[in-house]
Amino acid sequence: MFKIPPHQVAGHHASNGTLGPLVDDSGRFYKPLQGDERGSAEVTFYKQFSTNTEIPDRIRRFFPVFYGTQVMKASDGFEHPHIMLQDLASSRSNPTIMDIKIGSRTFGPEASDDYIEKCLKRDRETTTLRLGFRISGLQVYVSEELGFYKPSRDLVLKSSIDDVKLLFRRFVSSNSSGSDPDYALASKVYGGPNGILAQLLELKTWFEDQTIYHFCACSLLFMFEKTMASKGETSNAQVKLIDFAHVTEGRGVIDHNFLGGLCSLIKFISEVLKDPEDHKTPGGDTLESTILVNNGH
Amino acid sequence: MFKIPPHQVAGHHASNGTLGPLVDDSGRFYKPLQGDERGSAEVTFYKQFSTNTEIPDRIRRFFPVFYGTQVMKASDGFEHPHIMLQDLASSRSNPTIMDIKIGSRTFGPEASDDYIEKCLKRDRETTTLRLGFRISGLQVYVSEELGFYKPSRDLVLKSSIDDVKLLFRRFVSSNSSGSDPDYALASKVYGGPNGILAQLLELKTWFEDQTIYHFCACSLLFMFEKTMASKGETSNAQVKLIDFAHVTEGRGVIDHNFLGGLCSLIKFISEVLKDPEDHKTPGGDTLESTILVNNGH
Repeated sequence: MFKIPPHQVAGHHASNGTLGPLVDDSGRFYKPLQGDERGSAEVTFYKQFSTNTEIPDRIRRFFPVFYGTQVMKASDGFEHPHIMLQDLASSRSNPTIMDIKIGSRTFGPEASDDYIEKCLKRDRETTTLRLGFRISGLQVYVSEELGFYKPSRDLVLKSSIDDVKLLFRRFVSSNSSGSDPDYALASKVYGGPNGILAQLLELKTWFEDQTIYHFCACSLLFMFEKTMASKGETSNAQVKLIDFAHVTEGRGVIDHNFLGGLCSLIKFISEVLKDPEDHKTPGGDTLESTILVNNGH
Repeated sequence: MFKIPPHQVAGHHASNGTLGPLVDDSGRFYKPLQGDERGSAEVTFYKQFSTNTEIPDRIRRFFPVFYGTQVMKASDGFEHPHIMLQDLASSRSNPTIMDIKIGSRTFGPEASDDYIEKCLKRDRETTTLRLGFRISGLQVYVSEELGFYKPSRDLVLKSSIDDVKLLFRRFVSSNSSGSDPDYALASKVYGGPNGILAQLLELKTWFEDQTIYHFCACSLLFMFEKTMASKGETSNAQVKLIDFAHVTEGRGVIDHNFLGGLCSLIKFISEVLKDPEDHKTPGGDTLESTILVNNGH
């Protein structure tokens, strides 16, 4: 009945002795609570958010539906509390997905010195500090035969700014596996009234005003179905917010760290739409080598 | 002919053995180059910026006019190179001024470990990390007899978020020296088509798009003439950008650190305009004690 999510591109995975999320056939996603205060912080957020009447519907749709918590036998054989959420990929067959961690820093003001040091090191090594976001993972559907283009976590985290530009283009290409992406789906996925850019701008309007939450170390998930986009349908591109273990109260201050990163991301996506060919820059492309993963679809 | 600027509220001051800026009667401001690479970085910025045809006039007006560099005998008796700039306060008699350092961090991605550690400590101790900006200094004109309300640098840097809210209200009050500011000038100074908020929104539009410069550790200067504002004139409120020793090239990325802080500041100013009375929050007000400085005007 339960299985490992087939389309997870970042975060913890179930493996030998390690807890990881599960999905079932009814469209639910079971995320094991992280053992320390992060687990309870995420539950607290979901409980508070799901009953918060100040959240407009146009914003609530960006968040997974929360179904409560449940103790379950996990992959390690022991019983663990899990957060029950909407499985965002359940209605999709071959989703093309990108996970982008937003913010120019991934620690909050109240974090300990050790935690700040650890995060800052990672933020400086990745594009977080320079770009205001980093790509945490992605998979791009290529074809029935070839499966998905899915570079390893380490390779994705090593991305330079130019690599990120290229990945945003590869993400919307019909030939994503090659080194010369064609950007064929850019206007259908990023553009249009229901496209990813329009959804990001909707989020931006909210973030310019809301002072309820600070979404530290959260991710934006981009998702679309390539075969649908190729047929000219535009409404299948989705943006979602996930990972709320480090959400804190806004206390009258906007989440300037998330907003700044979001604006930087909006600028990058706008540039792809404006001039999809412009990704040739001096310097190496560490993502040149193509990794195809046929994960059973 | 040269004198110490009478209305400087933050930054280096000339004193025994320390270099500081000077002004003359013709409306020029002479800023000694900082000895290390910061001095040359600031000159490089001004030279590049003043000839950059990509800067629209509506944005250029936020920057001091640059007149070149000049070697001058400074307060320590030795000759030093100075940057010659427009003296922003020269046309004003009793300017009310606030200096706000923008950004949720004051170091750039290429800074050394030591420098980052130093900046991060300061950013965490002040409101920089939490608010996306910190007030570096201010003076508020009170009256001919009483002079200016001008809290000390240390007191200003110790401001809590509630203190910052109070200072934004005190800044536009006709009775700024008391603990119960009246916000009488809020709509005239912050509001209106030429007010500070409108100018900040103009800057925001540019920062959402420009990828030429990253304005690390720069300040916004708010300036207005209280007597003019009291008479109902609205056009005397000015916003300026200053301090460019840490500007770096944008290289295709927006300045998300500055933009995030700017949006946070815009939100704070909007709140004052919307509800000037709402500053009563639990917790102490470390700025309760009033410091008046009659600096010769």
